[in-house]
Amino acid sequence: MAIAILAHGKFPERAKTALGVMRYGDDDVAAVLDRDRAGERVADHVADVPDAPIVASMDDVGAVDALLIGIAPIGGEFVESWRPDVRAALERGCDVISGLHDFLAEDDEFASLAAEHGCDIWDVRRPRDDLSVAEGVAREVDAEVILTVGTDCSVGKMTATMELAAAARERGHDAAVIPTGQTGIMIEGWGNPVDRVVSDFTAGAVEEMIVERGDEHDYLFVEGQASIVHPAYSAVTCGILHGAMPDAMVLCHRAGRDVIHGYEEFTLPPLPSYVERYESLAAPVHGSAVVAGALNTMDVDGDDDAREAVREYGDALDLPVADLVRFDPDLVLEAVL
Amino acid sequence: MAIAILAHGKFPERAKTALGVMRYGDDDVAAVLDRDRAGERVADHVADVPDAPIVASMDDVGAVDALLIGIAPIGGEFVESWRPDVRAALERGCDVISGLHDFLAEDDEFASLAAEHGCDIWDVRRPRDDLSVAEGVAREVDAEVILTVGTDCSVGKMTATMELAAAARERGHDAAVIPTGQTGIMIEGWGNPVDRVVSDFTAGAVEEMIVERGDEHDYLFVEGQASIVHPAYSAVTCGILHGAMPDAMVLCHRAGRDVIHGYEEFTLPPLPSYVERYESLAAPVHGSAVVAGALNTMDVDGDDDAREAVREYGDALDLPVADLVRFDPDLVLEAVL
Repeated sequence: MAIAILAHGKFPERAKTALGVMRYGDDDVAAVLDRDRAGERVADHVADVPDAPIVASMDDVGAVDALLIGIAPIGGEFVESWRPDVRAALERGCDVISGLHDFLAEDDEFASLAAEHGCDIWDVRRPRDDLSVAEGVAREVDAEVILTVGTDCSVGKMTATMELAAAARERGHDAAVIPTGQTGIMIEGWGNPVDRVVSDFTAGAVEEMIVERGDEHDYLFVEGQASIVHPAYSAVTCGILHGAMPDAMVLCHRAGRDVIHGYEEFTLPPLPSYVERYESLAAPVHGSAVVAGALNTMDVDGDDDAREAVREYGDALDLPVADLVRFDPDLVLEAVL
Repeated sequence: MAIAILAHGKFPERAKTALGVMRYGDDDVAAVLDRDRAGERVADHVADVPDAPIVASMDDVGAVDALLIGIAPIGGEFVESWRPDVRAALERGCDVISGLHDFLAEDDEFASLAAEHGCDIWDVRRPRDDLSVAEGVAREVDAEVILTVGTDCSVGKMTATMELAAAARERGHDAAVIPTGQTGIMIEGWGNPVDRVVSDFTAGAVEEMIVERGDEHDYLFVEGQASIVHPAYSAVTCGILHGAMPDAMVLCHRAGRDVIHGYEEFTLPPLPSYVERYESLAAPVHGSAVVAGALNTMDVDGDDDAREAVREYGDALDLPVADLVRFDPDLVLEAVL
């Protein structure tokens, strides 16, 4: 499928979803829409994704199957200045894929354009209506289940999940990703947006995905969310932990992060205490160990300094660790397989 | 306000909401509807709540202001055999209060009857639309915040919350309850149904209530939910813990419970390990200690055996404990105030 990705004013640094889809998705990206960078190219800014032109609007995009909203303002609202691009996409018969909190299928104009032109609006953050409570059965699947857990939000759990699954597949294993957030769902093309389900159904929404795929693959890599000691989002983390019933966990951290992102008055507790908390919380439901760590060193400039940060992280956890994007994932992969 | 309580076929043992409202609510209960026990009286079955007649239908109820649905089948669906009573209540201009998952205000017949007769349908389990993520500020309120936490669902957290708040008030303290579940909300007449909010907003839905009431009272007793190691509902527990930021916690347990209710293949971990888990999980957000325990001995027949169970629970936790309904709450209250 060929897609265009909307990222006005935010490409590439503040376009996490766009970059995730470009890096890990299967679709061909025909163009990125960012009117502030029109005429430039993706390769001018990002080295490790396929190149594509950056254009000002849908009018400059050739034939594509879908327009994907690749950015999310704080709060996840739709931005009215994007309306002409979404309208143009629908009028051309393109599907629209969005992870915004505002559901585009509920917009009257978009809904009628989609009906008129026979195209779909996929709001990936809208949970299915038939989700329910967990039955406590995820531990029964054949696959080995590996969950990425974190010290905070935005430390690289989705990336670590994708990198580990890809590395496992490269080595000939049958590995699949269980997506739980909007970018993961867009990349994989399916999944429950666990942060948007009814709180009673948090574990159930994860369990259902594990059960659906758990006998088809040898390894399931489950995308974790937030952190078990996050002042706002720990409920989601805890529900995923007990719903997924992982056999092993990988603790993800971002080098230099020492306070909760966006909640800076809260200091991160010592790194080894996360291992104890995740294991202690998992144990009564399904025994699980943190077997490795993934360090995101994107804020560390030189490779030497990044290697030093990785070494320190490994010493703190006393576990095999790596930056799975920057360096070799082998040690971590060996620990989880 | 005078109310009638619908509890067809389930009064009193399986009418947890009805009993909670009768025991702790401020409303005068004019009648209980249970067609299987019509002609009997509440006092024939329950000793510690005001007496009232048990009747077959709304036709046998005198003047009341509201009909309250006091039972909930598994799944929380509306039962069609209740329709004539709800219809009769609305036709008489009575409000209807329901904690079912099925929202009665969305029923076409009930909605039009309510409009026609100028009465309200209050679905207590429908979250407000304007809830959002926690800001991490509950620890800033003046009140001392006390949270009931549990070893499982249905062990007595709501009851312990109500008993402690009442006992504190009796001793002259300014204490309020922060309700988080359907029965607590009905009793208090306000509150967010935390198990029904979007998972990302779990902590936020509790924080909002703490902030709203936290500077008006000296003590807030927060109704906890489920357990931090529950295979299905731990997300709700974790969100309440971090959203409420309690200064102290009371660990609630039910004598004889050794496996998770409804998930019997999961064994409860040792009691002291709950204390460690709740405290360890709270610490990075707001330091808190389990300062006392509440044991529900309703499954223990004799008072001597119940006292022995309480003694054993205190020994296991090495904390002041009591059955707050059956025995004197003083020791526990002293520990939390």
